[in-house]
Amino acid sequence: MNYTFSDRISTLQPSAIREILKTTSDPSVISLAAGNPSAQAFPTEALSRIMAAVMAETPALALQYSVSEGYGPLRQTIADFVTQREILPHTTPGRTMPSITPDQCLIISGAQQALDFAARCLCNEGDTVICESPSFIGALNAFRSYSVNLVGVELLDDGMDIAALEQALQHNPRTRFIYIISNFQNPTGITTSLAKRQAIYDLARCHNVTILEDNPYGDLRYGGNPLPSLKTLDEDGRVIYCGSFSKIIAPGLRLAYVIAPPPVIAKFTVAKQCADVHTNMLAQIICQRFLLEEDISAHLNRLRTLYQSKRDLMLSGIDAHFPQSVACTRPEGGLFLWATLPPAIDMFAFCRQAATRKVAVVPGNAFTVDEQTLSSSFRLNFSTPSDAQIQEGIAILGQLLHETL
Amino acid sequence: MNYTFSDRISTLQPSAIREILKTTSDPSVISLAAGNPSAQAFPTEALSRIMAAVMAETPALALQYSVSEGYGPLRQTIADFVTQREILPHTTPGRTMPSITPDQCLIISGAQQALDFAARCLCNEGDTVICESPSFIGALNAFRSYSVNLVGVELLDDGMDIAALEQALQHNPRTRFIYIISNFQNPTGITTSLAKRQAIYDLARCHNVTILEDNPYGDLRYGGNPLPSLKTLDEDGRVIYCGSFSKIIAPGLRLAYVIAPPPVIAKFTVAKQCADVHTNMLAQIICQRFLLEEDISAHLNRLRTLYQSKRDLMLSGIDAHFPQSVACTRPEGGLFLWATLPPAIDMFAFCRQAATRKVAVVPGNAFTVDEQTLSSSFRLNFSTPSDAQIQEGIAILGQLLHETL
Repeated sequence: MNYTFSDRISTLQPSAIREILKTTSDPSVISLAAGNPSAQAFPTEALSRIMAAVMAETPALALQYSVSEGYGPLRQTIADFVTQREILPHTTPGRTMPSITPDQCLIISGAQQALDFAARCLCNEGDTVICESPSFIGALNAFRSYSVNLVGVELLDDGMDIAALEQALQHNPRTRFIYIISNFQNPTGITTSLAKRQAIYDLARCHNVTILEDNPYGDLRYGGNPLPSLKTLDEDGRVIYCGSFSKIIAPGLRLAYVIAPPPVIAKFTVAKQCADVHTNMLAQIICQRFLLEEDISAHLNRLRTLYQSKRDLMLSGIDAHFPQSVACTRPEGGLFLWATLPPAIDMFAFCRQAATRKVAVVPGNAFTVDEQTLSSSFRLNFSTPSDAQIQEGIAILGQLLHETL
Repeated sequence: MNYTFSDRISTLQPSAIREILKTTSDPSVISLAAGNPSAQAFPTEALSRIMAAVMAETPALALQYSVSEGYGPLRQTIADFVTQREILPHTTPGRTMPSITPDQCLIISGAQQALDFAARCLCNEGDTVICESPSFIGALNAFRSYSVNLVGVELLDDGMDIAALEQALQHNPRTRFIYIISNFQNPTGITTSLAKRQAIYDLARCHNVTILEDNPYGDLRYGGNPLPSLKTLDEDGRVIYCGSFSKIIAPGLRLAYVIAPPPVIAKFTVAKQCADVHTNMLAQIICQRFLLEEDISAHLNRLRTLYQSKRDLMLSGIDAHFPQSVACTRPEGGLFLWATLPPAIDMFAFCRQAATRKVAVVPGNAFTVDEQTLSSSFRLNFSTPSDAQIQEGIAILGQLLHETL
């Protein structure tokens, strides 16, 4: 049989990043290309203990079908957790904000599902989605799979180019939402400044578009001060906020959440019914008990210490080995750095050469709206490699950069 | 903010079945309306033991990100499992069929995801999907969410009306696939005969359309002889086959699989990347070890005995209490019966009345392509209620039927 597929899926190409990642199954390759949390970050002992308790105490609940919205006690616990993180620290005498409530919370099978649902529920074919450029490739592909018009707005050191965003909104009246990773963005590590958060929110309001705020790395801040999320600035229910347990508990459990006004949650719930009925119950109950029974602050501090040390190790390697002409972001959290070479470098060729020297990094154009766009940047991840691999990998890249530039 | 949603999601209504199911949260209501496996069917002890072993032996594997295709050893184990069930029993000297291979297998987060991916990967807006009428409501809604043209073909006692199927294919040249639940169909319990399986396959071939064969109940046969699946009859890679562990291990784990030719698996894998990256790894490893380490035949026999006894109990209650004019299917497996009253009964009113007498059943029109279609049938589930609830519920329905007819 000759297979023909839908237009939406036919136009999606296997991404360049996956081709690069294939080389990393070779154990002699030092991969600075992935985005996995460190296995040292997993709270394995606590999860084992809780899992045994769940199977002893409430096995039928963990193994049976459940409702699409998510396990009720977890929705409550997450609402409290997000209130604690996003609302309370930014409440001042002049500015009180209501707590997040469980009916504003939908449990999903990893944050990728929120990106899928946003395009599914908000966009007709040909509608526009505006995103940071570069941005998370999984988001770009999810949006593309709904045949939307993807418009990238250049990401500067402190967030999107606001003038370019305004222009994009003006030129694309069918814009449905702006996608933004507000903290320690993937791939750049950039955090959007408070002034830009406010400017983006104001523009969204002025043009009556929704904001999809993705915050998988927000809890992994190990320098500077937390900024209010766009959700925190939200006065009229315009922000759909997405948080994840992949970076702070374990990605293998596929557990994340959407915080949005109830009418949005209702539509996302319909999408959830159609997509996978509900999220793995065992994972939901484990997560709920983990958040309630464990010392989460201590756990997060342990992760921050771990990743700060890895970031510092990578940055000091870069300072020692990279040519001066290579600019690197110095993020206050998250898992990634972004290195930018002088223009007119063939970044694909550079990354291929790095691979022949057994170091994998991802070329910047993998993260652009149009993968054919030239990019003189590459992404570096410091959470997955060991300390020794970070040191060796950066030294090898430094040598190659000196030869190339 | 005034919310506007995509056309595809705006037209999806919360289903009638969910409204009925809401009444079942009242513990005094006897629910014959759900489709949950019995909690007695869960292999809780084995799962607990395996879970502890997984967390002790391979915690990082269970907690880390993985590939979208699924955990390699599970793909292999499922390929063997499906070969054992669908291929080997039907291999004869004149007819040898190749085994299922792991590259034909994609692990998904519950069988619902296969329905979603089929529409996503095969259908453009306005393309036609042909399904049995009545059919599984979760499938109908997933297809609807891609703005396809849904065409129902009447389901007779031994499968679709083949003449009507042929007509539907002729009238809808943009048909992309035929959706069929071949064994103990939800909602009717009907199994498609071998002659009709072959006829459906031949028609699909003649009109060059794909078949999506959903087989969540196939392992729960407790009478008669297994029939070759459409996948088994497939000579040219036309059948996308979907199996699930929800009914034979535990639905809370959200674990199922697609068996299809590699080009289809490749596109579904792209959809998987966009939808939720990969399926919960803990669940995948648990399932793989369960299939390898436990005595699966003994486990399945235990489930068959359990459900056969519940079906028999419900059927004998029906024989004792229902009027002669109510026709009931007598399925050889699965979880459902289908009761049909004489025409011109207001089935919604009947089900509402049953609810006031504290028995919940689902009206037949919840399962039709057009929910406004009149139906004189209702669905009965015997896996979720206790034996006492089955007896009491059927007696109450019998009383109401005698009053109504």
